[in-house]
Amino acid sequence: MFIRNAWYIAAWADEVGPQPLARTILGDALVLFRDHEGRVGALEDRCCHRGTPLRFGEVVEGGLQCGYHGLVFDGSGACVSIPGQTKIPAKACVRSYPIVEKDEFLWIWMGEASEADTSKILDYPFHNDHAKWPHKHTVYHIAAGYELMVDNLMDLTHLAYVHKSTIGGSNAKIHVNAQMKVTPKDTGLHYLRWMLDCDAPPTYKKAVSFKGHVDRWQEFEFIAPSSVVQWSGALDVGRGAQDRRDQDGGFSLRLFHGLTPETESSCFYFWSTCNGYRQDEPEATEQLFAEIANAFTEDKAIVEAQQASLSVTGEDRLVDIVSDAARIHMRRTLQRMQAGESAVASSA
Amino acid sequence: MFIRNAWYIAAWADEVGPQPLARTILGDALVLFRDHEGRVGALEDRCCHRGTPLRFGEVVEGGLQCGYHGLVFDGSGACVSIPGQTKIPAKACVRSYPIVEKDEFLWIWMGEASEADTSKILDYPFHNDHAKWPHKHTVYHIAAGYELMVDNLMDLTHLAYVHKSTIGGSNAKIHVNAQMKVTPKDTGLHYLRWMLDCDAPPTYKKAVSFKGHVDRWQEFEFIAPSSVVQWSGALDVGRGAQDRRDQDGGFSLRLFHGLTPETESSCFYFWSTCNGYRQDEPEATEQLFAEIANAFTEDKAIVEAQQASLSVTGEDRLVDIVSDAARIHMRRTLQRMQAGESAVASSA
Amino acid sequence: MFIRNAWYIAAWADEVGPQPLARTILGDALVLFRDHEGRVGALEDRCCHRGTPLRFGEVVEGGLQCGYHGLVFDGSGACVSIPGQTKIPAKACVRSYPIVEKDEFLWIWMGEASEADTSKILDYPFHNDHAKWPHKHTVYHIAAGYELMVDNLMDLTHLAYVHKSTIGGSNAKIHVNAQMKVTPKDTGLHYLRWMLDCDAPPTYKKAVSFKGHVDRWQEFEFIAPSSVVQWSGALDVGRGAQDRRDQDGGFSLRLFHGLTPETESSCFYFWSTCNGYRQDEPEATEQLFAEIANAFTEDKAIVEAQQASLSVTGEDRLVDIVSDAARIHMRRTLQRMQAGESAVASSA
Repeated sequence: MFIRNAWYIAAWADEVGPQPLARTILGDALVLFRDHEGRVGALEDRCCHRGTPLRFGEVVEGGLQCGYHGLVFDGSGACVSIPGQTKIPAKACVRSYPIVEKDEFLWIWMGEASEADTSKILDYPFHNDHAKWPHKHTVYHIAAGYELMVDNLMDLTHLAYVHKSTIGGSNAKIHVNAQMKVTPKDTGLHYLRWMLDCDAPPTYKKAVSFKGHVDRWQEFEFIAPSSVVQWSGALDVGRGAQDRRDQDGGFSLRLFHGLTPETESSCFYFWSTCNGYRQDEPEATEQLFAEIANAFTEDKAIVEAQQASLSVTGEDRLVDIVSDAARIHMRRTLQRMQAGESAVASSA
Repeated sequence: MFIRNAWYIAAWADEVGPQPLARTILGDALVLFRDHEGRVGALEDRCCHRGTPLRFGEVVEGGLQCGYHGLVFDGSGACVSIPGQTKIPAKACVRSYPIVEKDEFLWIWMGEASEADTSKILDYPFHNDHAKWPHKHTVYHIAAGYELMVDNLMDLTHLAYVHKSTIGGSNAKIHVNAQMKVTPKDTGLHYLRWMLDCDAPPTYKKAVSFKGHVDRWQEFEFIAPSSVVQWSGALDVGRGAQDRRDQDGGFSLRLFHGLTPETESSCFYFWSTCNGYRQDEPEATEQLFAEIANAFTEDKAIVEAQQASLSVTGEDRLVDIVSDAARIHMRRTLQRMQAGESAVASSA
Repeated sequence: MFIRNAWYIAAWADEVGPQPLARTILGDALVLFRDHEGRVGALEDRCCHRGTPLRFGEVVEGGLQCGYHGLVFDGSGACVSIPGQTKIPAKACVRSYPIVEKDEFLWIWMGEASEADTSKILDYPFHNDHAKWPHKHTVYHIAAGYELMVDNLMDLTHLAYVHKSTIGGSNAKIHVNAQMKVTPKDTGLHYLRWMLDCDAPPTYKKAVSFKGHVDRWQEFEFIAPSSVVQWSGALDVGRGAQDRRDQDGGFSLRLFHGLTPETESSCFYFWSTCNGYRQDEPEATEQLFAEIANAFTEDKAIVEAQQASLSVTGEDRLVDIVSDAARIHMRRTLQRMQAGESAVASSA
């Protein structure tokens, strides 16, 4: 059961150009397109004439034209042209979805259109600050439910086992013994993790030079149902990392993690990397992106295997451990949202 | 639910030689073979001993021999030899199907064998007239129900969108505004479409030379449940196309379209091209075949996408348009045939 | 329904080294590993923390460590370490299976652990006699139920049709007219087949030189539920093959066939070849293995096609023939074992 009354990332804004883009979101087959005025539309990917997917069509004056018999639909889903006839029946239409372009994302509302409040879309100003936060983005298809990907981001002890050679480093104890503080918030939760006086991981060392041991932090905010905003970094020991003021010469990155359900057991992982160092060197941006891409490919492999296993065995006989604290809080938030939607649905 | 009491094309006659050919028709797994006397047999593709598919066997004296333990079956499905024993139990047999070779086709009857009346098989004499109608044929596997492929042939407005660069041409209005006359027939329906004083499409221009605009016709006959016979052509304006007498120097082709259900959502598309021009130039025959092959690959792509969509969503909320006239008539004919078979089945 | 209270081959002993090996047996997803002391363990392939397959883990001091969050399990399935916490909950464990290394095999018990009696594991001393019986082994994945593979070994008339060019030879009558004696045993059945004064098949002729016709035997023992031990050979006519004493210069091989169910419709085929001739020539061992590999690839193809057919049509309307005698006896043995397990299960 999906949480439908929420904003999800449908695509990166630059994914939707002259060609229609097909994407299944929360189980609904959609087509995204950009009309001649540059406005993005999100429609049911099924012509109301003979059921042909609209992704085979093309953008024409007035909207998206079906590639089979030529019907044209505008961004509201209304049919505005049927070749060979002047009268257009009222029921000739397809479902449309509210969609908003913001901070390089296309945010879509999959629930009741009347409840789509754009003020509730999270802000990510770093995507608009290319000078201070040069960045790069992509999307991964993940053969696992989005909850398992959010789980992954809520328990960072996995860095010691999954990401030994990339963002984790080979000393498991650094991660296992990290000091972590979890703070519930109205929109989700916040956590801050400190790993003091430790060796920097391979990805950090490739990016900047350290004198020796570093003080390292990971600050995460989970915004329900499926966005995670991350700020991580490290400074030489004694440089005042814990004040988080003077960061010149240190390592600092911002990662955006947006998970959008495709089906109950698959999702899209929209992520970007912003480097807060060597901002005038494009190769630093490329290098960070490449490193993170490797690390997230490691996550993808283990989480897809986890999904395949759980799809067969279910969640029986599983045991929580101490490092699950943030994960459990996150899951309870999702359960409350789902229960809320179910209650509204059953009273209606 | 299939219409079983009907003749379908099982294969092109030249597909069945010394090697057995496996093909699923109306959901039944069959094996076709040609015995030492040249007669074609159609059997259930499952040995009655241990269920092994007979397609792994070989043709021997007396019939088709199973490739596992050597049982031999003749064209009637009777077992005529069991290695190592002289007595053959009466129940040692497989189901056989009436099959007839005619006009380069192998026509098969999938219903009650006692009702298989070969006089009801349609005539296609053009396949026997190599001088006037040189031709070439093939078969496409289509991941869509046969009805969707017949639909495709009943609404030619799709030429403007699906076949822009091949048999359609880029001027959508020519197709949308074509004059079309539909005539019901006992065996199905007939329609004739005229596109007068228009530009010839790319495929036509590659085949012959025109002075300028042409008068263009498309004559189709649908013979239920799944054959469509087409005669299309074009003459220079003023050459008397509408009389359809003097066609020297014009463009004229005959296409045979035979759809045979494989499963509820897949079929075989047997088609041939006959060129009524430049009959003594083999390259003209090859060129026409290649052009049509391209066009039908375009149909295959869009119809398979349509099937994939309808398999998920069903036919709810679909809206008929004006150009659906012949399609709707054709579908009603199929529904009557299905209803007739159901009535017989339930009274039995 | 599987027979669970039995020993099956889980793997060849040399398949399980430092890397965990995942394998599904009788429908259970397992991971096999060898600990630092060289002991083999067989565990449920699912961490009790978050369900991640343990095959992504690595062997560490104490057992197998999950590759996601670092829990460690010993060969009994007990969790012996959870990173970041000292207390280990009692329910933190995974299912383990009795597993025994013997004669180059790893034998596993999939039923009630308390009934796992290692004295009931069959002996195959030839694997320990490298001088007299040099050998080589492998495992094939078969997309067919194990019963169909045992069927295959119980009716050797198939050699005339499936293995014409390898171990069978092209004269079908030799196989069809072979003298065969079937003897029931407590643990299964034994059969001996004689083909006297006949031509040797291609595989035999490649291995050794014959003067002319040979006397050829095939001795098989089926040990329920799914092991078949074979001794086959041939001597020049008149060399006393039937006494089975003087075999110098003749052809003699031992094959081990072990079938282990993966699912109801797939299995693993563990097999080895031992050559009882030219024992000091490694190329003789390689050549025999390669010949048998070809022949078993032929069996795999036909049996997988048979399974695909039976999965759709079931076993209705099948007819037994004379050569099915041993096969039918074998199937009855399996049915008795299954019935026995069902009776115990329903009384419990």
